[in-house]
Amino acid sequence: MATTTYTVKGMTCGHCVAAVTEEISSIDGVASVEVALESGAVTVTSDRDLSLDDIRAAVDEAGYELVA
Amino acid sequence: MATTTYTVKGMTCGHCVAAVTEEISSIDGVASVEVALESGAVTVTSDRDLSLDDIRAAVDEAGYELVA
Repeated sequence: MATTTYTVKGMTCGHCVAAVTEEISSIDGVASVEVALESGAVTVTSDRDLSLDDIRAAVDEAGYELVA
Repeated sequence: MATTTYTVKGMTCGHCVAAVTEEISSIDGVASVEVALESGAVTVTSDRDLSLDDIRAAVDEAGYELVA
């Protein structure tokens, strides 16, 4: 298992957290997603290496922005 | 048709707007709901007089607060 923390900009409420969690969870190999709303920290645990492009695409799909 | 504008506190994003719109729309007699996110103004058109308690309950159910 690998755990990586990303930063997502623009989440303002629990619905935003749910949207980001749902999109990232749907990436193949993702085992868990934890989101800290106030900091924007999104911690993803997966059983394979994830591509940053895949994470960025999932965050975009949810309507938010991956920082860096 | 009657149109009444209420003020709802705590909405921060489009998901919040959708949640409030959905709950109020489910009240019997409601024909349309328009929400202005920034001001919190929620304009409800209905074909009967609505009870403030019903509106308050719907807003609570969505997770927000009716002002006054």
